[in-house]
Amino acid sequence: MSIKIGILGYGNLGRGVEKAVNVCDDMELVGVFSRRDPASVKIDSGVPVYHTDKLPEMTDKVDVLIICGGSATDLPEMTPKYAKLFNVIDSFDTHANIPQHFANVDTAAKEAGKIGIISCGWDPGMFSINRLYSASVLPGGNAYTFWGRGVSQGHSDAIRRIDGVKDARQYTVPVPQALDSVRAGENPQLSTRQKHTRVCYVVAEEGADKEKITQEIVTMPNYFADYDTTVYFISEDEMKAEHSGLPHGGSVIYSGTTGGCTNADGSTAPVNKHVIEYSLKLDSNPEFTGSVLTAYARAAYRMNQSGDSGAKTVFDIAPALLSPLSGEEIRAHML
Amino acid sequence: MSIKIGILGYGNLGRGVEKAVNVCDDMELVGVFSRRDPASVKIDSGVPVYHTDKLPEMTDKVDVLIICGGSATDLPEMTPKYAKLFNVIDSFDTHANIPQHFANVDTAAKEAGKIGIISCGWDPGMFSINRLYSASVLPGGNAYTFWGRGVSQGHSDAIRRIDGVKDARQYTVPVPQALDSVRAGENPQLSTRQKHTRVCYVVAEEGADKEKITQEIVTMPNYFADYDTTVYFISEDEMKAEHSGLPHGGSVIYSGTTGGCTNADGSTAPVNKHVIEYSLKLDSNPEFTGSVLTAYARAAYRMNQSGDSGAKTVFDIAPALLSPLSGEEIRAHML
Repeated sequence: MSIKIGILGYGNLGRGVEKAVNVCDDMELVGVFSRRDPASVKIDSGVPVYHTDKLPEMTDKVDVLIICGGSATDLPEMTPKYAKLFNVIDSFDTHANIPQHFANVDTAAKEAGKIGIISCGWDPGMFSINRLYSASVLPGGNAYTFWGRGVSQGHSDAIRRIDGVKDARQYTVPVPQALDSVRAGENPQLSTRQKHTRVCYVVAEEGADKEKITQEIVTMPNYFADYDTTVYFISEDEMKAEHSGLPHGGSVIYSGTTGGCTNADGSTAPVNKHVIEYSLKLDSNPEFTGSVLTAYARAAYRMNQSGDSGAKTVFDIAPALLSPLSGEEIRAHML
Repeated sequence: MSIKIGILGYGNLGRGVEKAVNVCDDMELVGVFSRRDPASVKIDSGVPVYHTDKLPEMTDKVDVLIICGGSATDLPEMTPKYAKLFNVIDSFDTHANIPQHFANVDTAAKEAGKIGIISCGWDPGMFSINRLYSASVLPGGNAYTFWGRGVSQGHSDAIRRIDGVKDARQYTVPVPQALDSVRAGENPQLSTRQKHTRVCYVVAEEGADKEKITQEIVTMPNYFADYDTTVYFISEDEMKAEHSGLPHGGSVIYSGTTGGCTNADGSTAPVNKHVIEYSLKLDSNPEFTGSVLTAYARAAYRMNQSGDSGAKTVFDIAPALLSPLSGEEIRAHML
């Protein structure tokens, strides 16, 4: 019996989830739900599209609703709302508001006897798991997270809002010397500027003041002021040819030690260094994120089937719940 | 209230567990248990040492028994035996026998209402988790596991059994070209020989036939015959100075794709490649493995406290159970 999946929201992430669900033999994509007029939404795989107003009538047709909305305004409202009707999963990533979002989803999901997984994807998500595993195994070490090289959609949007900018793409790039030092277990203290640089490709409007645009970018608070930022002006054709993808990735590097303790006889045990690295090189950020959400949708369904309810994060979910294979199969082939 | 830990077996791994438990604020090391005469066993940290015969009397003094024995003969007998008395955890790594070992421990642990975690460490263990997470997120991709550069104790022992060999250390070394190709997402087909080389440092007995020793090593079935193996003869002093540590590590690299599907309108979605890598660089294999066992001992205790019993592997254990921190804390600081 297939797990019946609904997708709420059909932007880049929704399309990524669609592709991921369609390669899972144990899942069936019931449809895409949108706040737009369904007639105006063309779905790549051809599954039905419904207006979100139909969701309350479809509680017996959808096992897990994967919510592909924005963290700023969509998810804080949508995830608790639909956790009253379905097992849900989102990629909420406004870090400071996670406790409130978790509490809201927890209340709604528990009342409904449903599972609500929040903050799923790769960061938060797979990167978070790796920070937790490493810190649990080697307490007292240092965790470093590097992002990129990859496109930051938030930073690209921020540049597009500047007067005279027609299009923009911003790449976040880790500083190689910082990566090398962390990988060598040197435990450096790194400022924001020492960890990442920002590289911007901008298509300017005809006759725009490029010097002024550059100054506005590099001095923009929060987004660019604390970084070494390089701005390149390019043509629309070059933007389309070279920068139409959404690659991303990065590394979580954890550096810890064992030993160094004083023995009963007064001698000191040698200090041993250990470096753990988890890294991603992704050709498509939304397709990979969609694949992570899809695997966790399987877990949401199974946890709910076994009688569990409430808000969960990737921390609360045993790895086996993500796999379509049985316990016997994964022990035989992956352990 | 501390989790009370017992260590069964006091070789390199038992010492690694001892160091790990002693840096965990929520744990207390009750003692080390040995089949040897306790008077002959000197414990680094000075905790009491007991004969294993005392274990049945100490079921109320030990919450989790970490079993540090060999996979060939110790663990198949010890882990089911002590799962009848304690929550237990082991690092069983004879791959072909995992189903039987799991079944034996499951029966014993369920009867006793205890948890028995088997095959814990880094491979099997952290590497297994990464194979599973990656394959679940990107079904249909290829997983590659590389070991090293690091000391293989099994291979070092095999060389030591050759006539005329006084001491030996064998390093397993991944082939750089193979690593590069896998990291580039090229999905190469790699033979055993193409993945790893073996480098051996040997101290020969006075007057031994070095050419004969070399031939015996490089042609040894299972251990060396399928690899490009290099043998260096060194002095006892050099062995002690340069090869007394037990470093190890390696990488699990998973290469998968999204997209490539045919859309409803007949067009084909672009194929996007994704590469996931988890790597370890460990100064001390037994101390890192001991640290992993210790974190999972915390999980064993908690799972049992919540009423669960039976055999488990790392696949069955949610990451949050490994951390001494609360759900609120890990969501605030690591998500």
